[in-house]
Amino acid sequence: MGGERIWTAALLVIGDEILSGRTQDRNVAQVAAWMNRQGIRLAEVRIVPDEEERIAAAVNELRRGVDYLFTTGGIGPTHDDITVDSIAAAFAVPVIVHPEARAILEAYYGSRGGLNDARLRMARVPEGAELIPNPLSGAPGVRMDNVYMLAGVPSIAANMLEALNGQLEGGRPMVSVTVGAFAAESEVADLLRETQRAHEGVAIGSYPFAKDGRFGANFVIRSEQGERAQACASDLAGRLTAAGFEPVAGGI
Amino acid sequence: MGGERIWTAALLVIGDEILSGRTQDRNVAQVAAWMNRQGIRLAEVRIVPDEEERIAAAVNELRRGVDYLFTTGGIGPTHDDITVDSIAAAFAVPVIVHPEARAILEAYYGSRGGLNDARLRMARVPEGAELIPNPLSGAPGVRMDNVYMLAGVPSIAANMLEALNGQLEGGRPMVSVTVGAFAAESEVADLLRETQRAHEGVAIGSYPFAKDGRFGANFVIRSEQGERAQACASDLAGRLTAAGFEPVAGGI
Repeated sequence: MGGERIWTAALLVIGDEILSGRTQDRNVAQVAAWMNRQGIRLAEVRIVPDEEERIAAAVNELRRGVDYLFTTGGIGPTHDDITVDSIAAAFAVPVIVHPEARAILEAYYGSRGGLNDARLRMARVPEGAELIPNPLSGAPGVRMDNVYMLAGVPSIAANMLEALNGQLEGGRPMVSVTVGAFAAESEVADLLRETQRAHEGVAIGSYPFAKDGRFGANFVIRSEQGERAQACASDLAGRLTAAGFEPVAGGI
Repeated sequence: MGGERIWTAALLVIGDEILSGRTQDRNVAQVAAWMNRQGIRLAEVRIVPDEEERIAAAVNELRRGVDYLFTTGGIGPTHDDITVDSIAAAFAVPVIVHPEARAILEAYYGSRGGLNDARLRMARVPEGAELIPNPLSGAPGVRMDNVYMLAGVPSIAANMLEALNGQLEGGRPMVSVTVGAFAAESEVADLLRETQRAHEGVAIGSYPFAKDGRFGANFVIRSEQGERAQACASDLAGRLTAAGFEPVAGGI
């Protein structure tokens, strides 16, 4: 497996509402889980405000270091939707009205009051871009080179991800197996380290929690080879039992 | 108000579990809301994996551009907790055992099985660092220069934020007032733009949603001057009414 190519992605969340604490982001988790299913490793996330220069700079930094850059937010019809302009600036190309996007919006808004200037904003793309279908609400997402612009509303972003399912080249999905225990991390730290050492190609993450006044941790075993992750999980469960802790398959 | 200093912060979330989609992050929202209360503007968030080089590089990029850099995650007792080492590397200083942190852990674990090597890991800090109190579970947070290292478990991070409340120099908290309506963004885009233009020192964000099959949006008016935000909200509500939409104070 050593020579197998690893595909990577980054996510840029564009949104004052996340940075102000007003809105709990839901896109990081859903994009991360989706990437995992495509066999693509999410290597970094950034959240930046609705400012063209900040967006363009982050896009140019991120897109060059990964196979795919996804963005969420800022592709709607209002004055604070500046993702398309910012990404056109990042690529140093003009913004144009995409004829197919215009046709999609005309059809969608035909029975909903027709196309106005604000709605037409959602047909604007950086020159050279393609569309990402959006069966839910008409206005499409946009792909420019390796940059995929999705909506900020999580349900609409989910639809666009669905449309992209299986379309991106990726590797082997990462398999994770979780074992939990009401064990303080500090009591099992050595045991974890030794277990990880005994299993090649496997990483164990330890995620403490407090539940009903008791401390515990979930141990997440990740590998690109499912059998290795399973073997490591069994071994870990055995070691936890031997140390006097009751392992819980699937985590707590 | 033009010359008033704006205080800024960045947040670095350290965690493979977030990037793999396993865990829904809760720290961005709580740190963002806390910053807002301190009058500090959260300017950027990054999420990076548990890799020393990536953490150190992000820390050095971020800490120089803002007044305060907060980190969450990676300060526990297990092998995957490498935040202290990574930040020591970023500052090019050695890691030492902080005598006060050691004393805190000795006291905390005295009745809980005593201090072992794994627990002692939580007394390690970059040389020159100070402690951030953690009333909940003993192990303190760490401050190194303008970098504040908090726990990844949201309830513990919340306690550390509580301990830091009012301790950081900040400006005027941003006031936000929300007005919602079952209006498609594309029907009110011009109205929003005009309202924003009519009110200096105020920014209006528009956040669409789909609820029970109906589309709507919340309009968030933000200003460092509460009266201005309120005046703008009243004006916007009036304009929405005049356009045939029923405004909902506080949002939907």
